[in-house]
Amino acid sequence: MTEVKAILFDVFGSVVDWRGSLIAELGAFGATRGITADWTGLVDRWRQAYAPSMDRVRKGELPWTVLDDLHRSSLDRIIDEMGIVGLEETDRGHMTLGWHRLRPWPDSIAGLTRLKTRFIIGPLSNGNIALLVNMAKSAGIPWDVVFGSETFRHFKPDPEVYLGAAAQLRLAPSEVMMAAAHNHDLAAAQKLGLRTAFFARPTEYGPLQSRDFAATGAWDVVARDIEDLATRMGC
Amino acid sequence: MTEVKAILFDVFGSVVDWRGSLIAELGAFGATRGITADWTGLVDRWRQAYAPSMDRVRKGELPWTVLDDLHRSSLDRIIDEMGIVGLEETDRGHMTLGWHRLRPWPDSIAGLTRLKTRFIIGPLSNGNIALLVNMAKSAGIPWDVVFGSETFRHFKPDPEVYLGAAAQLRLAPSEVMMAAAHNHDLAAAQKLGLRTAFFARPTEYGPLQSRDFAATGAWDVVARDIEDLATRMGC
Repeated sequence: MTEVKAILFDVFGSVVDWRGSLIAELGAFGATRGITADWTGLVDRWRQAYAPSMDRVRKGELPWTVLDDLHRSSLDRIIDEMGIVGLEETDRGHMTLGWHRLRPWPDSIAGLTRLKTRFIIGPLSNGNIALLVNMAKSAGIPWDVVFGSETFRHFKPDPEVYLGAAAQLRLAPSEVMMAAAHNHDLAAAQKLGLRTAFFARPTEYGPLQSRDFAATGAWDVVARDIEDLATRMGC
Repeated sequence: MTEVKAILFDVFGSVVDWRGSLIAELGAFGATRGITADWTGLVDRWRQAYAPSMDRVRKGELPWTVLDDLHRSSLDRIIDEMGIVGLEETDRGHMTLGWHRLRPWPDSIAGLTRLKTRFIIGPLSNGNIALLVNMAKSAGIPWDVVFGSETFRHFKPDPEVYLGAAAQLRLAPSEVMMAAAHNHDLAAAQKLGLRTAFFARPTEYGPLQSRDFAATGAWDVVARDIEDLATRMGC
């Protein structure tokens, strides 16, 4: 483990609480716009559309599309399906940018700040660069570098993302650690020779959570959260 | 100017003092290795090789090559030309990584830290990502995002670099300001619709400096240094 030079993080669910953030934001936004809707249901449907929308790009059914645009396209469909009325173009744009304003879990900033003292830290996320940069600005996340799917024009778990980040840092895969609350992300990274760190986020999906309550692979580090990861990494 | 959301910086010469840093580093390194050479001459030749080496890539004479590798190739040639003996493979690797350890000008960190409170700040440099990230770690530069030539697989002044950064930030060119101590960099940015800020670094090239003592274009802001730029940008 002394070999690790950079720790790259999954972001949605691992560093930030997308569900709690969006439910709170959309509820408040709906109130100011005088629109009542099942915002929790909308958020859950929105996230359910996430992996299938990226898979359409990964399989070549869609040309390269950044996550902001996939989010917007899914949102329009869900608004129609749920029969929500009164959401104008600017409203939909504002809602989509809600993904740029997600709040970190309570341990994230403190843990990342400690890790930054000894390691290069960055996101390795399916988000696009503007989303990740704006999120870091609003949440105070002290990344050293910002890697998104857009950097490599591939979505995780395509190998190009993990190996591309190591190559841009001029590090061997074994010098890079992937840190995430999702076992499948770590499985893809480990297969390519990266180090792996898991910490559970058991409330990420609320009552819909069905997996990732615990480590299911032989990860290099299993921590309680990002603060605990910092401790285990000697920071 | 209220429209500007991001300020992107040229790095070599504008944010960091490559010449002073490398002369000091190589002098100390040569002493520990017991090798005497005209290190100042070597540094000046090394920088003179910079633009021609990138132009070979820009013209298609070389395939895409990151700056670290161009630097190393130029160094090997210059060592031969100067007849310096005793520099082994590991020495040459260490010397090339000297570009990752360049020191900021005295105003750079304070000015950037102030600008970061109101703007997205990042490098827009011909350096590769590892070089820029390692430099930021060692010098304490608080970038929000790291854009290098490698991000776009083009070197400045190719338009892909300036427009690619604006696109990744999902900003219009007029919402992005290019900040540099080099008039030609700003001319390329302005032509594409970016805002521009100039500050002189009259000692960048030491006695070899022949230009960029003052603004030669109609730049949006002309400042004394990066601290003064922060003041002029309301930070």
